Amino acid sequence: MPATPPVLVDIKFNPEGVARVLKTAFADRGSINLADPADRTRDLRDVEYALLWKPDADLFKRAPNLKVIFSGGAGVDHIIGMDGLPEIPIVRFVDRSLTTRMSEWVVMQCLMHLRGQYTHDSHQRQREWAKLIAPEAAEVTVGVMGLGILGQDAVAKLRVMGFNVIGWSRSRKQIDGVETFDASEFDSFLARTDILVGLLPLTPETSGFYDAGLFAKLRRNGALGRPVFINAGRGKSQVEADIVSAIRDGTLGGASLDVFEAEPLASDNPLWELQNVFITPHDAAVSEENALFRHVETQIARFERGEPLQFVVDRAAGY
Amino acid sequence: MPATPPVLVDIKFNPEGVARVLKTAFADRGSINLADPADRTRDLRDVEYALLWKPDADLFKRAPNLKVIFSGGAGVDHIIGMDGLPEIPIVRFVDRSLTTRMSEWVVMQCLMHLRGQYTHDSHQRQREWAKLIAPEAAEVTVGVMGLGILGQDAVAKLRVMGFNVIGWSRSRKQIDGVETFDASEFDSFLARTDILVGLLPLTPETSGFYDAGLFAKLRRNGALGRPVFINAGRGKSQVEADIVSAIRDGTLGGASLDVFEAEPLASDNPLWELQNVFITPHDAAVSEENALFRHVETQIARFERGEPLQFVVDRAAGY
Ligand SMILES: NC(=O)c1ccc[n+]([C@@H]2O[C@H](COP(=O)([O-])OP(=O)(O)OC[C@H]3O[C@@H](n4cnc5c(N)ncnc54)[C@H](OP(=O)(O)O)[C@@H]3O)[C@@H](O)[C@H]2O)c1
Ligand SMILES: NC(=O)c1ccc[n+]([C@@H]2O[C@H](COP(=O)([O-])OP(=O)(O)OC[C@H]3O[C@@H](n4cnc5c(N)ncnc54)[C@H](OP(=O)(O)O)[C@@H]3O)[C@@H](O)[C@H]2O)c1
Repeated sequence: MPATPPVLVDIKFNPEGVARVLKTAFADRGSINLADPADRTRDLRDVEYALLWKPDADLFKRAPNLKVIFSGGAGVDHIIGMDGLPEIPIVRFVDRSLTTRMSEWVVMQCLMHLRGQYTHDSHQRQREWAKLIAPEAAEVTVGVMGLGILGQDAVAKLRVMGFNVIGWSRSRKQIDGVETFDASEFDSFLARTDILVGLLPLTPETSGFYDAGLFAKLRRNGALGRPVFINAGRGKSQVEADIVSAIRDGTLGGASLDVFEAEPLASDNPLWELQNVFITPHDAAVSEENALFRHVETQIARFERGEPLQFVVDRAAGY
Repeated sequence: MPATPPVLVDIKFNPEGVARVLKTAFADRGSINLADPADRTRDLRDVEYALLWKPDADLFKRAPNLKVIFSGGAGVDHIIGMDGLPEIPIVRFVDRSLTTRMSEWVVMQCLMHLRGQYTHDSHQRQREWAKLIAPEAAEVTVGVMGLGILGQDAVAKLRVMGFNVIGWSRSRKQIDGVETFDASEFDSFLARTDILVGLLPLTPETSGFYDAGLFAKLRRNGALGRPVFINAGRGKSQVEADIVSAIRDGTLGGASLDVFEAEPLASDNPLWELQNVFITPHDAAVSEENALFRHVETQIARFERGEPLQFVVDRAAGY
């Protein structure tokens, strides 16, 4: 083992991309890539830093001397709650490009619902010329749940596009030109919301959170007629059976989902074919490997210089 | 006839909406609505102001004493060139809401091409889970042709969404953070453009303008692979046979069209079913009647107070 132990990488996405970019990342200390058969049985006892996305269950037993855990994504629900998770800092991935991509997805989905893209699309397939007179963005209130890194960027961009935007988070935020609500003002927030955008982390509190009861509290006489549910946080925050019924019985007028209770979404899941529902396969904001490894390098350098780590998760809150 | 002659209205869109809103518009002088059978044969000789969208061919003969013509939309190509058009000011419709709606459409179309919405949609219909790793907006250059009221608003919003934006217009514009080109720098503008957004008026110069030769000059090695053509200006500026071939032979990777050589688009037109082409029925930015009539009232009041009219068309330029 070299004086500086390599960084342990156990990432369960895009193995080719990870392998390719790892060749040049962590030049000063190298890496152990558990996705690489040659590395799979390496001795991990000296390892200090681990970069993880849905790691092996025995990982913390094999690597008992970790100092910092880095998440391969913005969320940490895949690590929190694991057996044997050591009491060390968990750093999540925060990245300008990831944030920008999420806002692209959120703004596009809100515009597609505003402008009747689903209906336009079915007219197009029927070769039918039928003008739709949509409300303008200012007539529609987008309620963003979760005003963290992603939520705040989405809020700013939705406002520029003309939407009326309100926001909700555990602790109340101050955002210029945006009415904000805290956890206790849940019902008044929902009663004002035409398009609900979920950007919440998965925690015990947000598990099974988007359900029939919540959908029924959304505004029903807004400019779009019926409310729309959009989720790019985590699938386990939504009750999919309730989404299906709400779309079918008209409680919801539409939805956009990037995340699902179980991924990949099974081909016999009814969500695929619901009216005015847009499905994307958890690719709203993918972690780009180059940026991810640069971020880990930066944080390790800070840590070794004795500076505080950034983006450290609050383990009690779970995000 | 009253001392103040009524406003003449000859608008060939949304007759119910026009009739409804006309009831309360122009309270001081009333109106003559040529779409109303009761008004159709009225004497128009004293009329001074006419609000027109694709007016009757004999209109100027029947109303020889007009002082100002108002267009029912942002474009005036439906009036310019008409036989007997008098030498009086033509005022076009400029409206915050119309501008906002156009930018909603433009930003949505650019995002749908950026994020592979056409492919996502066909995966959804096949119930297929397949992540797409799209470039981020900053890797894609949107080239906006026409930097007037609509073009400049779209440019600002595309920039906020992260796109690299460049612009082209007859006379060069100064826009913060946006590289601009004038008419003479046509080829260098196209060579830099991944997504071309057309927001040009229809004039003799822009008639048949978007053709095979132009498509072939767009950038071919950009982050989207192949260039995309988006048009919400006027359909007669595009050569549709060339769009069809360019999509089929891969010169273009996609398109979004709101306007067409002949509208409504015939149901046997091949455009409806081309790969990665989004069709909307000339509803990107509809004129809202309330706003339109308020705008005409404002301009008449200015005119009668002796103040200069706004948004007067340059008849030599044709827009
Ligand atoms: N679909 C994708 O491709 C994708 C990509 C990246 C991330 N994500 C998901 O997006 C989530 C958000 O990311 P982020 O970077 O914006 O996280 P963040 O900065 O930690 O923000 C989380 C926000 O949610 C709020 N929140 C958490 N629990 C809450 C509760 N019980 N009640 C009310 N508000 C609560 C927080 O409130 P406070 O401000 O009061 O703390 C905060 O505003 C991630 O956790 C991840 O699951 C999805
Ligand atoms: N699809 C819809 O629903 C819809 C709705 C509204 C409007 N429109 C169309 O959009 C068009 C643009 O509206 P707007 O309000 O932005 O008009 P505008 O303010 O008059 O702007 C027109 C722009 O086009 C440029 N231009 C005109 N002829 C040109 C030429 N030959 N070469 C290069 N540039 C040229 C002008 O250049 P300069 O700046 O140098 O003059 C100007 O920048 C309207 O004319 C209408 O046809 C469509």
